[in-house]
Amino acid sequence: MTMRNIQLDDKGRLRHFLTVEGLTRPILTEILDTAESFAGVGAQAVKKVPLLRGKTITNLFFEASTRTRTTFELAAKRLSADVLNINISTSATSKGESMLDMLRNLEAMHCDMFVVRHARSGAAHFIARHVAPHISVVNAGDGCHAHPTQAMLDMFTIRRHKGEFHKLRIAIVGDILHSRVARSQIHALSLLGAHEIRVIGPKTLIPRDVSTFGVHVFHDMRAGLADVDVVMMLRVQKERMQGAFLPSEHEYYQLYGLTEDKLSCAKHDAIVMHPGPINRGVEIDSRVADGPRSVILEQVTNGIAVRMAIMAMVLGRGASDDAETRRTGDRG
Amino acid sequence: MTMRNIQLDDKGRLRHFLTVEGLTRPILTEILDTAESFAGVGAQAVKKVPLLRGKTITNLFFEASTRTRTTFELAAKRLSADVLNINISTSATSKGESMLDMLRNLEAMHCDMFVVRHARSGAAHFIARHVAPHISVVNAGDGCHAHPTQAMLDMFTIRRHKGEFHKLRIAIVGDILHSRVARSQIHALSLLGAHEIRVIGPKTLIPRDVSTFGVHVFHDMRAGLADVDVVMMLRVQKERMQGAFLPSEHEYYQLYGLTEDKLSCAKHDAIVMHPGPINRGVEIDSRVADGPRSVILEQVTNGIAVRMAIMAMVLGRGASDDAETRRTGDRG
Amino acid sequence: MTMRNIQLDDKGRLRHFLTVEGLTRPILTEILDTAESFAGVGAQAVKKVPLLRGKTITNLFFEASTRTRTTFELAAKRLSADVLNINISTSATSKGESMLDMLRNLEAMHCDMFVVRHARSGAAHFIARHVAPHISVVNAGDGCHAHPTQAMLDMFTIRRHKGEFHKLRIAIVGDILHSRVARSQIHALSLLGAHEIRVIGPKTLIPRDVSTFGVHVFHDMRAGLADVDVVMMLRVQKERMQGAFLPSEHEYYQLYGLTEDKLSCAKHDAIVMHPGPINRGVEIDSRVADGPRSVILEQVTNGIAVRMAIMAMVLGRGASDDAETRRTGDRG
Repeated sequence: MTMRNIQLDDKGRLRHFLTVEGLTRPILTEILDTAESFAGVGAQAVKKVPLLRGKTITNLFFEASTRTRTTFELAAKRLSADVLNINISTSATSKGESMLDMLRNLEAMHCDMFVVRHARSGAAHFIARHVAPHISVVNAGDGCHAHPTQAMLDMFTIRRHKGEFHKLRIAIVGDILHSRVARSQIHALSLLGAHEIRVIGPKTLIPRDVSTFGVHVFHDMRAGLADVDVVMMLRVQKERMQGAFLPSEHEYYQLYGLTEDKLSCAKHDAIVMHPGPINRGVEIDSRVADGPRSVILEQVTNGIAVRMAIMAMVLGRGASDDAETRRTGDRG
Repeated sequence: MTMRNIQLDDKGRLRHFLTVEGLTRPILTEILDTAESFAGVGAQAVKKVPLLRGKTITNLFFEASTRTRTTFELAAKRLSADVLNINISTSATSKGESMLDMLRNLEAMHCDMFVVRHARSGAAHFIARHVAPHISVVNAGDGCHAHPTQAMLDMFTIRRHKGEFHKLRIAIVGDILHSRVARSQIHALSLLGAHEIRVIGPKTLIPRDVSTFGVHVFHDMRAGLADVDVVMMLRVQKERMQGAFLPSEHEYYQLYGLTEDKLSCAKHDAIVMHPGPINRGVEIDSRVADGPRSVILEQVTNGIAVRMAIMAMVLGRGASDDAETRRTGDRG
Repeated sequence: MTMRNIQLDDKGRLRHFLTVEGLTRPILTEILDTAESFAGVGAQAVKKVPLLRGKTITNLFFEASTRTRTTFELAAKRLSADVLNINISTSATSKGESMLDMLRNLEAMHCDMFVVRHARSGAAHFIARHVAPHISVVNAGDGCHAHPTQAMLDMFTIRRHKGEFHKLRIAIVGDILHSRVARSQIHALSLLGAHEIRVIGPKTLIPRDVSTFGVHVFHDMRAGLADVDVVMMLRVQKERMQGAFLPSEHEYYQLYGLTEDKLSCAKHDAIVMHPGPINRGVEIDSRVADGPRSVILEQVTNGIAVRMAIMAMVLGRGASDDAETRRTGDRG
């Protein structure tokens, strides 16, 4: 079974959203177009559409993240779905009940979607491979592997500001090696046909095989930023500062912190992005983060629309057929 | 004041649902019939009925149980009620505010129902005896005493598969002594006129007075399973394994674990039930739990419909009269 | 920028609700009148009005308070708003992300209101000074500073029982010095034109400057209660009993605990109030708390209506203009 089969149903429609890898440009474009149609909802007096009324969306968070959980909860509520928040400490799962038994139980309660966050890479795929046919899984971040809704909101933000991807030169700056965000961004930019993708960072933080994706590697930030249209900063995980991977906070800022000075190497109308939360004075200077080229808060706003789009797409596929199948199978 | 008076209103309708004991066969049958009418809701595209719109249902959990809380929360939301989750550690209650003062406050906020979970037997009754006239209490498990919604979803599952109770021979297997589930099951089966109720377990785990309920006691599992239509397994509380009550996990499995071999003593079309979460390889073999005779996940599905039924019955009684009474009494 | 400017918009309508201080009698009266229109909602069969449908109200609790959070959550749900509960331990904020960055993110998600609870005085003002134009802030208690929704529900309760404020003599009893409730009550009573405001307590617990507000100070409780129409008790913070501020629990009760005997000094139809949770036998005798003159539970009921009123007022101001402004500004 290929990755493509897991994420798409037999009619080629998005069933799970686990990773950008293995999807197609038309699917990504459909996500962006659908998100565009939801982008106005947040600004309406009544920020709600009845699309997923009566659906049950379960946030299954094996790793705490108030921020991410909040964006999915808001997206689900604005689609009029019922939301269930379940926080599972890994210890509790291992003790009481296997993860699969827990999933079977939630399925039996007729949940429609699991939004999964897990510290282990591959957790969302594992769950998707084992859920019942009527359930969709959305990956809200798994270990170092993927954070695909973040990548799609980034693509949405780029397209709104810069239009067609094939004209764009984009730099991703920071700890590429450990970043699930970077992995997902590179796959998305590549699929959408970005003109040039660059990664910038110290040697210890760039995966060796990254150039096989057609990505250009820079260790000098000014060189890497030259003439780019989009600068995508990554968050420094301060806990990594302790080990051998990263230089000191101060040295990192000198080399790879985004300042107005370094940013002047990019195109004059380049936009600056960051997945948040930002470390001011570590990977980005406050004058840049709060400056006119920063679209960091727009990314947050767009995140709601993009998550609404993905939720609506995976649950919206031929709902009536599904219900039919399930009803007849119910008394089994 | 008898138990019957507490649970029923002056017109004999269900007001609280605390325990199966003291209820009548017509009331239990009404619960099962009402649940039948909700059983299809989970399979609909829009899994919601507007029956309890504008009602406030409060989950008052003095003992943590994500699993049970989730089923009540889903049931309430599918009835369109507003749900409030309140987790109270016993220490907090004892320090800040007496339980009665806390209840008075929630009543004053016009909550309509308390779903109560408590480690102490009798807690739900205590609360029911002290709430205001407009409040209903549903017991979601109190100590070793009762877990009546579990028992009713079990009855619902049995009736769906096996029809009339008076033809059925049913065995309950495990730690009968400490199980609130078993107590509630025995009362329900007895009231619904089951042909024969058997309990199977080691001597240390069978209450001495159980035969006064017309229950037949077996210590040998094969003998106890002979010719039964329904096998109801209980969960082994592993923490009890430490003491003198239970043999080792391995020995317990040899004697009372449900294997395909032991199950072959039952009728060929016997169903296997378990309240969950299951301890695979302790009280039940995975081949049985996941096998064709297992209805364990159907129990979970039915649990939503049965809880919807009970909530709708206790809150649905002459809502208009109640509102009238309350309005006139409001300005006191 | 004066306090008045922060709480009111340019048309003089309530935009934030942070403190009673700096507001006007017409605004307070509008809150009370609006609350009156919501007072019946809790007694209706369907306890919901669609006024804030599609609005997102975020409970930002930097200090845990199930009780207060519950009242705001119920008020928001009965106005049909979507509610997001966010509990932030101060440590987490200081580590990961600055409070302002967190606010910017929630704003970007198109939240409409922050209900703020914080252990530090001034926190709600700080947030209000820094939020985007489309956000309203409601103070749910900040340090020793203010608890204005509590004060307004007290005013509402007094007006329902006693009518016009200019005829009333009112005593506040207890730890005035540390009480955010007392501060807010004094401001509200003063603005609404109460005939006489008295505070009663030991010298150590009365602020020195309180008489500048036209408040009369009593250290003898019987003298202070003479001929009052309303007795407003404060909760004793038992943790303060350890220090030099307060005498022993027993001694405090002898001097300032409200007993039937002491209450007989007040007018025969005086009402007794308390913000809850009550310490029975410390600041109030159970016979008084549960007696015919106590309106303590009515205060709780009224709290929902008053919070609904404040939420509806701050979010109801020319919603259509707002949406217009936001939509045009959205693509920035």
